[in-house]
Amino acid sequence: METDFSASQIEELADYTYPIKDISAGPASGTFPCDGMVIAPCSIRTLSAVANSYSSDLLTRTADVTLKEKRPLVLMVRETPLHLGHLRLMQQVAETGGVIFPPVPAFYNKHRDLDEVITHTAKRTLEQAGIVVEGMDRWAGPLGE
Amino acid sequence: METDFSASQIEELADYTYPIKDISAGPASGTFPCDGMVIAPCSIRTLSAVANSYSSDLLTRTADVTLKEKRPLVLMVRETPLHLGHLRLMQQVAETGGVIFPPVPAFYNKHRDLDEVITHTAKRTLEQAGIVVEGMDRWAGPLGE
Amino acid sequence: METDFSASQIEELADYTYPIKDISAGPASGTFPCDGMVIAPCSIRTLSAVANSYSSDLLTRTADVTLKEKRPLVLMVRETPLHLGHLRLMQQVAETGGVIFPPVPAFYNKHRDLDEVITHTAKRTLEQAGIVVEGMDRWAGPLGE
Amino acid sequence: METDFSASQIEELADYTYPIKDISAGPASGTFPCDGMVIAPCSIRTLSAVANSYSSDLLTRTADVTLKEKRPLVLMVRETPLHLGHLRLMQQVAETGGVIFPPVPAFYNKHRDLDEVITHTAKRTLEQAGIVVEGMDRWAGPLGE
Amino acid sequence: METDFSASQIEELADYTYPIKDISAGPASGTFPCDGMVIAPCSIRTLSAVANSYSSDLLTRTADVTLKEKRPLVLMVRETPLHLGHLRLMQQVAETGGVIFPPVPAFYNKHRDLDEVITHTAKRTLEQAGIVVEGMDRWAGPLGE
Amino acid sequence: METDFSASQIEELADYTYPIKDISAGPASGTFPCDGMVIAPCSIRTLSAVANSYSSDLLTRTADVTLKEKRPLVLMVRETPLHLGHLRLMQQVAETGGVIFPPVPAFYNKHRDLDEVITHTAKRTLEQAGIVVEGMDRWAGPLGE
Amino acid sequence: METDFSASQIEELADYTYPIKDISAGPASGTFPCDGMVIAPCSIRTLSAVANSYSSDLLTRTADVTLKEKRPLVLMVRETPLHLGHLRLMQQVAETGGVIFPPVPAFYNKHRDLDEVITHTAKRTLEQAGIVVEGMDRWAGPLGE
Amino acid sequence: METDFSASQIEELADYTYPIKDISAGPASGTFPCDGMVIAPCSIRTLSAVANSYSSDLLTRTADVTLKEKRPLVLMVRETPLHLGHLRLMQQVAETGGVIFPPVPAFYNKHRDLDEVITHTAKRTLEQAGIVVEGMDRWAGPLGE
Amino acid sequence: METDFSASQIEELADYTYPIKDISAGPASGTFPCDGMVIAPCSIRTLSAVANSYSSDLLTRTADVTLKEKRPLVLMVRETPLHLGHLRLMQQVAETGGVIFPPVPAFYNKHRDLDEVITHTAKRTLEQAGIVVEGMDRWAGPLGE
Amino acid sequence: METDFSASQIEELADYTYPIKDISAGPASGTFPCDGMVIAPCSIRTLSAVANSYSSDLLTRTADVTLKEKRPLVLMVRETPLHLGHLRLMQQVAETGGVIFPPVPAFYNKHRDLDEVITHTAKRTLEQAGIVVEGMDRWAGPLGE
Amino acid sequence: METDFSASQIEELADYTYPIKDISAGPASGTFPCDGMVIAPCSIRTLSAVANSYSSDLLTRTADVTLKEKRPLVLMVRETPLHLGHLRLMQQVAETGGVIFPPVPAFYNKHRDLDEVITHTAKRTLEQAGIVVEGMDRWAGPLGE
Amino acid sequence: METDFSASQIEELADYTYPIKDISAGPASGTFPCDGMVIAPCSIRTLSAVANSYSSDLLTRTADVTLKEKRPLVLMVRETPLHLGHLRLMQQVAETGGVIFPPVPAFYNKHRDLDEVITHTAKRTLEQAGIVVEGMDRWAGPLGE
Repeated sequence: METDFSASQIEELADYTYPIKDISAGPASGTFPCDGMVIAPCSIRTLSAVANSYSSDLLTRTADVTLKEKRPLVLMVRETPLHLGHLRLMQQVAETGGVIFPPVPAFYNKHRDLDEVITHTAKRTLEQAGIVVEGMDRWAGPLGE
Repeated sequence: METDFSASQIEELADYTYPIKDISAGPASGTFPCDGMVIAPCSIRTLSAVANSYSSDLLTRTADVTLKEKRPLVLMVRETPLHLGHLRLMQQVAETGGVIFPPVPAFYNKHRDLDEVITHTAKRTLEQAGIVVEGMDRWAGPLGE
Repeated sequence: METDFSASQIEELADYTYPIKDISAGPASGTFPCDGMVIAPCSIRTLSAVANSYSSDLLTRTADVTLKEKRPLVLMVRETPLHLGHLRLMQQVAETGGVIFPPVPAFYNKHRDLDEVITHTAKRTLEQAGIVVEGMDRWAGPLGE
Repeated sequence: METDFSASQIEELADYTYPIKDISAGPASGTFPCDGMVIAPCSIRTLSAVANSYSSDLLTRTADVTLKEKRPLVLMVRETPLHLGHLRLMQQVAETGGVIFPPVPAFYNKHRDLDEVITHTAKRTLEQAGIVVEGMDRWAGPLGE
Repeated sequence: METDFSASQIEELADYTYPIKDISAGPASGTFPCDGMVIAPCSIRTLSAVANSYSSDLLTRTADVTLKEKRPLVLMVRETPLHLGHLRLMQQVAETGGVIFPPVPAFYNKHRDLDEVITHTAKRTLEQAGIVVEGMDRWAGPLGE
Repeated sequence: METDFSASQIEELADYTYPIKDISAGPASGTFPCDGMVIAPCSIRTLSAVANSYSSDLLTRTADVTLKEKRPLVLMVRETPLHLGHLRLMQQVAETGGVIFPPVPAFYNKHRDLDEVITHTAKRTLEQAGIVVEGMDRWAGPLGE
Repeated sequence: METDFSASQIEELADYTYPIKDISAGPASGTFPCDGMVIAPCSIRTLSAVANSYSSDLLTRTADVTLKEKRPLVLMVRETPLHLGHLRLMQQVAETGGVIFPPVPAFYNKHRDLDEVITHTAKRTLEQAGIVVEGMDRWAGPLGE
Repeated sequence: METDFSASQIEELADYTYPIKDISAGPASGTFPCDGMVIAPCSIRTLSAVANSYSSDLLTRTADVTLKEKRPLVLMVRETPLHLGHLRLMQQVAETGGVIFPPVPAFYNKHRDLDEVITHTAKRTLEQAGIVVEGMDRWAGPLGE
Repeated sequence: METDFSASQIEELADYTYPIKDISAGPASGTFPCDGMVIAPCSIRTLSAVANSYSSDLLTRTADVTLKEKRPLVLMVRETPLHLGHLRLMQQVAETGGVIFPPVPAFYNKHRDLDEVITHTAKRTLEQAGIVVEGMDRWAGPLGE
Repeated sequence: METDFSASQIEELADYTYPIKDISAGPASGTFPCDGMVIAPCSIRTLSAVANSYSSDLLTRTADVTLKEKRPLVLMVRETPLHLGHLRLMQQVAETGGVIFPPVPAFYNKHRDLDEVITHTAKRTLEQAGIVVEGMDRWAGPLGE
Repeated sequence: METDFSASQIEELADYTYPIKDISAGPASGTFPCDGMVIAPCSIRTLSAVANSYSSDLLTRTADVTLKEKRPLVLMVRETPLHLGHLRLMQQVAETGGVIFPPVPAFYNKHRDLDEVITHTAKRTLEQAGIVVEGMDRWAGPLGE
Repeated sequence: METDFSASQIEELADYTYPIKDISAGPASGTFPCDGMVIAPCSIRTLSAVANSYSSDLLTRTADVTLKEKRPLVLMVRETPLHLGHLRLMQQVAETGGVIFPPVPAFYNKHRDLDEVITHTAKRTLEQAGIVVEGMDRWAGPLGE
C-alpha cells in the first residue's frame, strides 16, 4: 500500500472540496447538514485553534461549529512528546465534547506492516466519528463461558 | 526486523532484571544510583498508578522515586482515544516532571516500514530520557542561509 | 421475591461470563461490540478505580473502555454517608460521561415491599444504560389540561 | 406575523399545560416519557435556578430532571449584557449538558423583517432540542467543487 | 410497620413544631440552644438552598445556622441519578461541614423487609447527628484474633 | 437618636418606593437612569440571591442589573460568624464588582454611643456607593511633615 | 431603515479609518488618546483573539490596549448556541474588564420592526461604552409611589 | 460601662501574659495544654499572617499551632469594606478550621447602648471558642407549638 | 530501647489483630464502635489509597470508614523528599479531615537518643488521635508573667 | 538629567512625608481623602505584602486601603526574571484592581538617552494613576484616512 | 553604542537565518540539535501564541518545540502595564518551563547610559538561556566575613 | 557525635557568613555566582516567606533569587502535624521548583543512634542540592539477576 499521497490524489477521493480560506462556505454554518468531522492529521496549531475557538479559516471554523452543534469531532493529534500546554488544550477540547485520537499503533493486533497499521487507525478513527466500518478488526479474545 | 519478542528475549538484553513484586529491590530507593527511567509501553493502569503515586509494585515505586529525585521519567502511553480522565492523569504526571511520550509514528520522516517506525520511536524515547543516541535521524530541512 | 442470590445463580442468568482477572478478554478492547455497562452494586473501591482509570482487572478496564468509547456507564454506588473524597470521585466520573446512580428507594412510588423497591431500582438502572424497559412504573401524575 | 401573543393564545397551541406550582405533575419525574425541553425565553432567574438545581417550581424541576436523564435542554437566554456571574451560571449549565441558546438574530441570512428573524430563531431552537425542522433555512454557500 | 405517615402523625411525635415560614422562630438564631439537625428526606431544592445559603424559610435558615455554629447537619438526599450539578452542591455542603447521607439500603445487613431497611437507615442517620442509638445493628464480623 | 424605625417611617423618607414583588418596575431594567444601589441590611439570603443572580423579586433583580451595568452595589452584610459558604458568596459578588460592607463599628473613632456608631456606618456606606458625604468623620491622624 | 450597508458606506460615516493590518497605527499604543472601543459584530474568532491577547492585527491589538488601559471595551458577540469553550472565552474577557454584549432583541420594548430592534441595540451598545445617548428608550415602568 | 481600656488594665485581667516577641514561650508549641484561642480585634495584617502561616511573633505562631492541633481559633476581623483579597484570606482560614467572626452588632436584639452591643459580641465570641457563657442573651422567639 | 520489632512482637501487644485481606472484618463498617485510627508508618502507596478511597484491603477500607464517620485518622507519612503529587495527596486527605503527621524529630526537646525521639513521636501521634497521654513532654517555656 | 537622588532630595519634592512605621497616620484609613497611589519602584517583597494584604507598615497598609476603596494603585515592579510565584502575586493584585506596571523602556519611542526613558516611564505611571500628564509623548502613527 | 539596527544588520550577525514562514525548516523539529531559544523582544501576540501553542510560523513552532524538548526558552516580554490576561499567559508559559524575562533596567547597577542598560540586559538574557557570559557585571556586595 | 552546636561553632565551619538583615549582600542578586541553597531547619514562617516571596531579609531574598534563577533550593521543613495551609505553602514552593525535604528518619537503614540518623539526613539533603556526597549510604538491596 502506498502511504504517500499527493494533495491532488486525496482531493480526487473527495466528493466535495473547499478552499481553506473560504469562510463563507457551507460547513461554516451550524445549519449545514453534516454528521461529524475528522481532522487527520491534526497539528498542534490546529488543536490550539480548535481548543480556543480561534476560527481563522474554514477548517477551524467548521470544527468549532461541529462542537457547538454537538456533532462528533475527532482530532488525530500526532505530536510527541506532549508538554503541559498540549495536554491542557486537549483537555479543553475533550471538555467541550471533542475526541482526542492520537494515531498510536494498536500493539496487540500484531499488524505485519505499515499498511495494516495505517488502515486500522483509519477505521478506528471513522468509528469514533460515528461511522459503522465494515471489516473492522475487532478484539474479542476468547469468548466468555 | 523482528517486532515480536518474548519476555525472555528482552530479559537477555538487560544487564539486571528485578521481579516486579520485589519492593525492597535497589531501584525502590532514592539513594540507588540511576540516571532515569522509561516505561514502554505504558498502560493506562500504570499511568494512573504513577500519576497518583499508587506504588504497589517495583515498577510504579521506581517511577515515583524517579519523580521525587527529579530524574527523567518517560511514559510511552499507547492508549487511544484519550478521554478526559486519561488527559488529567497525564497532566498530573507532566506537572510533577514526567514526560508523556505516545509512540505516534513520525509522519514526516517517510519511514518505509514498521521497523523504521519502531526504531525511530525507540531512539526518540531514549533521547527524552537524557541518553545521547548515535545515528539519530534528525530533521534539519534545508540549512538556513 | 428472593433477594439473596449466590454467585452461581447470577452466573446462570448471564449469556457470557468472564474471569475478573482475564485482562485480555474481549470487553477490554474498544473494538469489542457492546452497548453499555452497569456496575451493580459499585463499591467505593471500584468507583475510585473507574474515576482514576486504575484498570487493574477486567471489570475496571471495561468501565474505562466504556467511557473512552462514549458508551453509557452506570455506577450503582451504595455507600453512605459520602465524604468529600467520595463526592470528588463521583464528580470525576460524571465529568467523563458516567452516570452516578445510588440505589435510593423511590419514596413516592409507595412500594409495598423490598421486592418492589429492588425491581424498580433495577429497571431504572437499565433505562440509564439506554435499554428500553417494558412495564416500567412511570410517574405521570394527573395529566396536564 | 403577529409577534405579541397572550398567554391564553399560547396555551391553546399546547397539547397539555401544567400549573407551574404543581410539583407533583408528570414531568417532575425522570420516569415521565419525554424527549427534551426548551425554555423560551429564559430569564436570568430561571437560568440561575437551573444552574443551581434550585427546583422550586415545575419549570425548574423539569429542567433539572431533563439534565439528570441526559435529554436535551435548551435555554433561550435573552439577557444583555452578560456579567461574570451570568457567564458562570451558563458555564455550569453547559458542563451539565444543557445548551445555551441566546436568540441572537442570524445576521447573514438577510432576513427582511422581525417575523423572519423570530421564525428562524424558533426553528434553530427546535433543532437544538433534537427535533427535525422542515423548511429550515440552511446556509450552504456555493457548493464545494 | 407502617411506612406511610400523615403530616399530623409526624407532628404528634414532635415536642415542638414551627411553621416553615416563621423566619423569626428560635432555631433561626445561632444563640438558640440546639445540638444538631437532620433533614429527611432532603430534596434537591433543599440541598441547593443549603449549599448556597439561600435561606428563604425556617428550614433552610436553620440549616445555615447549624453550619455556621459548627453543629452536625445531616442531609438525607434521595435523588437518583445524580448529575454533575447535584454532586457539586453536595461537595459544597461537605466542604462547609455538612453530612451527605443518601438513604441507600445497607445491602450486607440482610434486612428481611422494608421496615427493617427504614429503621436501620433512621438509626444510622441519628448517629451521624451525634445521637447515641440503642439497639443499633452493628456490623462486627468475626472478632479479630 | 432613635434607632428603631417602623417601615412606614422609612418609607416617608424615600422619594419613591416600589412593591418588592413588582418585577416590571423601572429599576428592573438596565435602561433605568440610576447611580448605584445600597442594600442595608443585607441578609445571607439576599447575598445568596445576588451572588447567584437568583433575581426573584425587585430587590434582587435591581441588584443584578446594577452589577451588569457596572454601577456601584454595596451590600451591608450583617451575619456573624461567616462560614465557608458565606465567604464564597461574598467572593462571587466581589468578583462581579460589588462591595461587601459589613457594618462593623469603627473602633478607632471612639464613638461615644450607638447613635454615633450607626451614623458613621451610614455615611461610610454612602461613600462606597459614590455619594460625597458632607461632615464625614475623616481619620487623618497628625499631618505628615 | 436600510439594514444592509456596504463597507464603503460605513467608512464614509467614520472620521478616521485604518487598514486592519497597520499594526503601527495610533490606536495600537496605550498613549493614543481614546475613550473606549466597540466591536460590532464580534465573531468568535475575534472574541478568542481578545480573550487570549492574540493581537495579530490592528483590531485585536487595539482591543488589548483598551483592556490594559482600563477603558471600556464592548464585544457584540453574535454566535448561538454558545458551547463551553465560547463561555470560557467570554468569562476571560469579563474578568479582564470587557463587556460581553450579545445583540439580543429587547423583548419587552415591543419594537415594531427590525429597524427599531437594531437602533435600540446600537444605542444600548454605545451606553455600555460610556457614551450618553440622547433619545434612548428607557424602561421606567410606572413610577414608584 | 467603660469601653476604653489601657493595655495595662487589660493585662491585669489576665492570669498570664507573654511578650509578643517571645517565640519560645509555651503557647508556641503544640504540646502546650490549651483549649482554644481568640484574637480580638484581629487586623487584616494578622488575618494575613494566620492565613499564610507567616508566624513571625508569638501571636501568629500560637494561632498557627491552634489550627494544626485542631483547637478552636476565633478571629474577630474588624475591617470594612472587604475586598477580594481579604475574602480569600478569610476563606483560607475557614478551610483550615478557623472561625471568621466580624463583630457586627446583632441588630435584632434591640440593644439600648454600646455597652450592651459590646458585651453581647464578647459573649458570642467566647461561645465560638467553645466556652459556655452564663447569662447569654439567647434568641428563642415564641416557642413552637 | 529496642527499635527493631518483629511483626509477631507487635501482634502480641495488640488486643485484636485482623488479616489485612479480610475485608468483611468489623472495622470495615461504619457501625463498628471505634474511636479513631493511626497508620504508622504510612507509605506513599497507603497515602494514595486513602486519598483516593482505593479501599482494596482492610487497612485502607478502615481508613476510609474512619474519614466518612468523622473520627480522627492520623497518617504518619515517612517519605522524603515530597514531590508535588505527594503534597496533593496529603492535601486531599487533610481536606477530608485526616491528619498528616510526618515523624519529624522534635528538634527543640533536646532528646539524647533515638529512643527518646521515637517515644516522643509515638506519644504525639496518640494525642493527635484524641488519646490523652500521661507523662507527655510538654513544651511550656518560662511561664508568662 | 541626574538619575541618582538622595532620599532627602526626594523628600524635599514632597508636600507631606510620613514615617513608614507610623501605622496611625492619615493614609492608613479609608476615610482619608486621596486619589490614588503609586509605589515606585516596587520590590517583590512589597508586591507580596500588597498581594496578601500583609500590611505591616504605612506603605503596605495604604496600598491595601487604596484597593479596598477602589482607588487606582500602580505597582512599578522591577524584578526580572519573574518566576511562577511572582506571576501569581501579580495576578492576585490585578484581580483585586491594582495595576502591574513594570518599568520596561518603550522601545518604539526611540529615546536618545536614559533621561528620556525614565521621564517617559514616570509620565506613563502617573497616567495609570489617573493623573493627566501634560507634554506626554503620545504614539499616534500616521493619522488614519 | 548604536541602539538602532536595521534588520539586515542583525541578519549579518547571525550564522544562519530562516524565513519566518518556512515551517519545514530544521528548528521546527524536536530532533534538530539546539541548546535553547531567546525571543527578544517578545510581543504580547507572540507570548500568546507560545502560551497556547498556536504555532503558526517558524518562530512560534520553534518555541513550542523548545518547550516540549525541555530546553531553555526565554521570552523578553516588553509590554506594560500587564493586565490579568497577560499575566495568565505568562503563568502558562512559566508552568510549561519557559522563562519570563521583561527587560527591566537593573536600577542598582548605576548604569550611566542606555548603552550599558541594554548590554546588561542582553547579557542577563543569555545567561537565562544557559550561556556563560564573560565580563558579566555581577552584584556581589561586600564579601561576607 | 555532638548534636548541639552553638551559633558560633556553626559560623566557624562556614567560609563566609552574612548578617541576615544585610539585604544588599551578594547572594541577594541573581548575578551572584552560586550553585544552590539549603535551608536547614526551615520553620513554617520561612516556608511561608519563600512560598509567597515575602523576602524581608537576606535568607528569604536569597531563596527567592535561587528559585528565579532555577537553581536547586532545598527546604528542610520540620513541622508536624501539617495542616492544610502548610501543605498549600509546600505545594506553591514545589510548583516553583523548590524541594520539600522533611528530615524524616530513614526507617529502613537501621541506624543505631541519633548521630547516624542526622548524618544520613544531612547527606541526603546535600544530594538534593546537587552536591555529590562521598560515602553515602545507598540502598541497593540484593542485585537484580
